Amino acid sequence: MQNIRALLFDVFGTVVDWRSSIIDEGAEINRCKNLNVNWADFVDEWRGLYQPSMEAVRTGKRPWTILDVLHRESLDQLMQKYQIIGWTEAEIVHLNNAWHRLTPWPDSSEGLYRLKKKYTIGTCSNGNVALIVDMAKHSDLPWDMVLGAEVTGHYKKQPEAYLTSVEMLGLTPEQVVMVAAHNDDLYAAEALGLKTAFVARATEYGPHQKKDLVAEKEWNYVASDFLDLAAQLNA
Amino acid sequence: MQNIRALLFDVFGTVVDWRSSIIDEGAEINRCKNLNVNWADFVDEWRGLYQPSMEAVRTGKRPWTILDVLHRESLDQLMQKYQIIGWTEAEIVHLNNAWHRLTPWPDSSEGLYRLKKKYTIGTCSNGNVALIVDMAKHSDLPWDMVLGAEVTGHYKKQPEAYLTSVEMLGLTPEQVVMVAAHNDDLYAAEALGLKTAFVARATEYGPHQKKDLVAEKEWNYVASDFLDLAAQLNA
Repeated sequence: MQNIRALLFDVFGTVVDWRSSIIDEGAEINRCKNLNVNWADFVDEWRGLYQPSMEAVRTGKRPWTILDVLHRESLDQLMQKYQIIGWTEAEIVHLNNAWHRLTPWPDSSEGLYRLKKKYTIGTCSNGNVALIVDMAKHSDLPWDMVLGAEVTGHYKKQPEAYLTSVEMLGLTPEQVVMVAAHNDDLYAAEALGLKTAFVARATEYGPHQKKDLVAEKEWNYVASDFLDLAAQLNA
Repeated sequence: MQNIRALLFDVFGTVVDWRSSIIDEGAEINRCKNLNVNWADFVDEWRGLYQPSMEAVRTGKRPWTILDVLHRESLDQLMQKYQIIGWTEAEIVHLNNAWHRLTPWPDSSEGLYRLKKKYTIGTCSNGNVALIVDMAKHSDLPWDMVLGAEVTGHYKKQPEAYLTSVEMLGLTPEQVVMVAAHNDDLYAAEALGLKTAFVARATEYGPHQKKDLVAEKEWNYVASDFLDLAAQLNA
């Protein structure tokens, strides 16, 4: 543990509760616009288009494209499907930017402040820089820096997303802990030599979540939340 | 002013007093190692090699190389010239990392905290990410993000260093203020459409400073320090 200098965090699901946040914004939209959209279904479909949209970039079928743009393309598609029509461009942009306003889990902000006192804390997310920074200011997430997809030009789980982030920290992989609520993120990080921390977020995908309810292996750290992680890391 | 969303800061000289910081570290080295090096001369020469070392990268004579490495090459050259010999590798690395431990001007930290409440604040420096983040943690500089050279792959005054930073902010150039103690940095930013703020740091180059004592033109903002800048920007 003495060797650890920095923590890199996955963000969607690990730090913030994207599903509830967007359902809440949707409920407000239903009220204001007198709509009857099922926003739980809507957000699950929106998130369902996330991996396929990035895969086109990962495989080189399209040039580097930030997540805000991928989110918008998926949103346009779903608004059509759900027959949500007649919105101004500014209203659509605002809804797309719901991803910039996601609410943290109750322990996230306090846990990050504790960890920041002892370690460098950064993001290694697929979110673009503006998305992560807007969210940080909205939800009091005191990142030392924003790394990950946009600054490395690669989406996770591409190795460069992790390794270039570590390189920008001026550290070696074994000095860095990848923190995620997703086992597959940790398998990828571990294979590259990073240390790993699993934090269960058992309601990320709502009441019927099947995946990532528990750590699938003995990661370097398995914590119930960020405060527990801080305690385990003596922060 | 209503349109301004973010401020990007030059760092060396604008936020931190690199010359005095390194002279102070040198005085400590003279004491501990019983040396008689003139560290004012030494640091002026070290900084003198800064632009030529980046120029080899800018012109494509060498591939992308971070500032820590350029600083180290210059340091090796100067240690030979000043006949500073017999150091361990760890001692040389520590001295090279003096650039990670630079002391802010008296108003820098407080001014940034004020500006951060109202605006996104980031760096647009030639320093690499680890250098800027170590300095931020050492000197309590609450950046929202680290942009500039390493994440854009271009040294100032190359246009990409500014424009890709603005793009990563998700903003247009006219929504961003470049803050610098150097008129040439502001000429470059202005030409690309950014707003400009000059903050005089009249002792950056020591008692005999000839350049950048005053604003060379009516920049959008001309401030005596970061607190004055915060006041002018209603932060």
